[in-house]
Amino acid sequence: MNSNFRMKAPELAVSAWFNTPAPLSLERLRGRVVFLHAFQMLCPACVSHGLPQTQRVQSIFRDTDLQVIGLHSVFEHHAAMTPDALKAFMHEYRLTFPIAVDQPSDTGPIPQTMDRYGMRGTPTAIIIGRDGHVEYHRFGIEEDMIIGARLATLLAAPMPAPVAAGPEPAGCTSDGCTLDPHVG
Amino acid sequence: MNSNFRMKAPELAVSAWFNTPAPLSLERLRGRVVFLHAFQMLCPACVSHGLPQTQRVQSIFRDTDLQVIGLHSVFEHHAAMTPDALKAFMHEYRLTFPIAVDQPSDTGPIPQTMDRYGMRGTPTAIIIGRDGHVEYHRFGIEEDMIIGARLATLLAAPMPAPVAAGPEPAGCTSDGCTLDPHVG
Amino acid sequence: MNSNFRMKAPELAVSAWFNTPAPLSLERLRGRVVFLHAFQMLCPACVSHGLPQTQRVQSIFRDTDLQVIGLHSVFEHHAAMTPDALKAFMHEYRLTFPIAVDQPSDTGPIPQTMDRYGMRGTPTAIIIGRDGHVEYHRFGIEEDMIIGARLATLLAAPMPAPVAAGPEPAGCTSDGCTLDPHVG
Amino acid sequence: MNSNFRMKAPELAVSAWFNTPAPLSLERLRGRVVFLHAFQMLCPACVSHGLPQTQRVQSIFRDTDLQVIGLHSVFEHHAAMTPDALKAFMHEYRLTFPIAVDQPSDTGPIPQTMDRYGMRGTPTAIIIGRDGHVEYHRFGIEEDMIIGARLATLLAAPMPAPVAAGPEPAGCTSDGCTLDPHVG
Repeated sequence: MNSNFRMKAPELAVSAWFNTPAPLSLERLRGRVVFLHAFQMLCPACVSHGLPQTQRVQSIFRDTDLQVIGLHSVFEHHAAMTPDALKAFMHEYRLTFPIAVDQPSDTGPIPQTMDRYGMRGTPTAIIIGRDGHVEYHRFGIEEDMIIGARLATLLAAPMPAPVAAGPEPAGCTSDGCTLDPHVG
Repeated sequence: MNSNFRMKAPELAVSAWFNTPAPLSLERLRGRVVFLHAFQMLCPACVSHGLPQTQRVQSIFRDTDLQVIGLHSVFEHHAAMTPDALKAFMHEYRLTFPIAVDQPSDTGPIPQTMDRYGMRGTPTAIIIGRDGHVEYHRFGIEEDMIIGARLATLLAAPMPAPVAAGPEPAGCTSDGCTLDPHVG
Repeated sequence: MNSNFRMKAPELAVSAWFNTPAPLSLERLRGRVVFLHAFQMLCPACVSHGLPQTQRVQSIFRDTDLQVIGLHSVFEHHAAMTPDALKAFMHEYRLTFPIAVDQPSDTGPIPQTMDRYGMRGTPTAIIIGRDGHVEYHRFGIEEDMIIGARLATLLAAPMPAPVAAGPEPAGCTSDGCTLDPHVG
Repeated sequence: MNSNFRMKAPELAVSAWFNTPAPLSLERLRGRVVFLHAFQMLCPACVSHGLPQTQRVQSIFRDTDLQVIGLHSVFEHHAAMTPDALKAFMHEYRLTFPIAVDQPSDTGPIPQTMDRYGMRGTPTAIIIGRDGHVEYHRFGIEEDMIIGARLATLLAAPMPAPVAAGPEPAGCTSDGCTLDPHVG
């Protein structure tokens, strides 16, 4: 499948996981649709809209193979939004889907996953298709009906064809063309 | 195509149409997905939930081949909910999708389309797939996310294959077994 | 009490009453606070905001001597908003406070009470104090907290002093100055 | 004025103040009506209902002498709801009324003001009248219309008569009867 104009979803950079027995990775989730909701616990629109919507996604698509992931992408008030504070928040707001703490950066306030995806802020909703590409990326508040439609369409998509094992050769593949790092 | 467990959508029985240059029929809409919202103008849940949801369906799926139809299925207070009153209501509530007045019955308060579909009341949402079968039938209020998901799934379905002319033979096919009506 | 700048509330002109064993009149309600909500059954903001707010007023102030009155002031779509249609509407929306049908005008679409009060449209909320003057007049939607505050303040006001019997003499009184109709 | 059955409002025990140039005290606010909203920054009902309602109180009664005070009464998740975290929260939620941090207890999780008032939890709304007595105390969510009515009624009440200087003598006064501590 050719997907020149869709970004391959960068891997999550995570410093801590909650609500999951083992860390998740997009690599291992390949073949499934992923709904990724980036939030901050002190972001009003996340609390009133984004997180309740994510809980509805979790509930409505519970019988599908959709994976819901919350991403706590703190880019301000770092001292107030620690992992311990997040834990209390999750408890009070009854959040039960897996939540990842976005890995802080060594060089600035923007955490690493947020930076990799070029997010503009929180809340941000990202949907990743079965083949691991970003199918939807939206900062702010979105209508439930649109989220439902996008998820259903992607869940109905067939599993991607198996990829040959081994490192991807430099050059052109169905996903595009890459430089050979050893050249030059 | 045989579809034993899904009802073929009965044709609409309509005494008047609004917001359309020509009457619609499910027969002529075959091949398209139809969102049918049955309401009464004096039904509180229709006014506060069903009709606003139908307007969101109309807006969000405007670039698809979905056909939205409102069905005014009056089964009580007939003197208050006349076609003229409906016209004023449509104007005040800014309803712009095609609206059909469900054909009154000669023998009771339940109008004919409502009876054909076995609706329990209003609001009722019905979704008809490309092959003309009822894919969804729900009395009451439904979440936007679920409506969005159902519509997107059906819109993604391929057009049905053309059906051979003539009566379907009795006997067993891959879809099930039917009785020969001439036998016995 | 001097009240030069407050309009004395004009009497209601009513063609039919619902939800009351006998007609009401502001004259006979003198000494009590009155909450008057003017609406039309096909006015969206009345249905979604004004009438639910009036129901909350009725419920919250039920142990006071406040009188709640709905006023069906039809100034458009007259054929659709007949008294019979209003009766069905009241039934479906569970309205139990007294409702008056504003007396139609012989000369135009604006009914008589609406005209007397100079209302701009529906919904309009009017509060009349114990002394029969208009204390509050607002077109559109108002915050519950403000309505609650205005009603409580007026309900706390002492009953007005008894008025001398007989017709009010022309000339100046504490309420202002009036012309002698027999003069000139 | 006799007020046998109304509790005199205990003084606030506060470890830090925000949004005020100088600490407030109920003692110095005597003669004014006070709206006290006890909340926790991670309490969902406080965030979705109590604090927005308090902001409406602040806005709607801004031209009166009402004093609005937020009280951060943390009785769980102490590590997550520090004064620094509260500061970030206030910034994100645009809270501009004075906010007091309820003084932690040395002996248990319940802070001192919360304990003095016998609060059951958060959100709690308390209204203190001009004479310094508790006029309203409610745990949970209350209708805006009721809050508006209670505040307006108390704001309309006259200032209390000046109290004679010096210690109150034992015996019976207009406020009730007290024991002489030196007796017995």
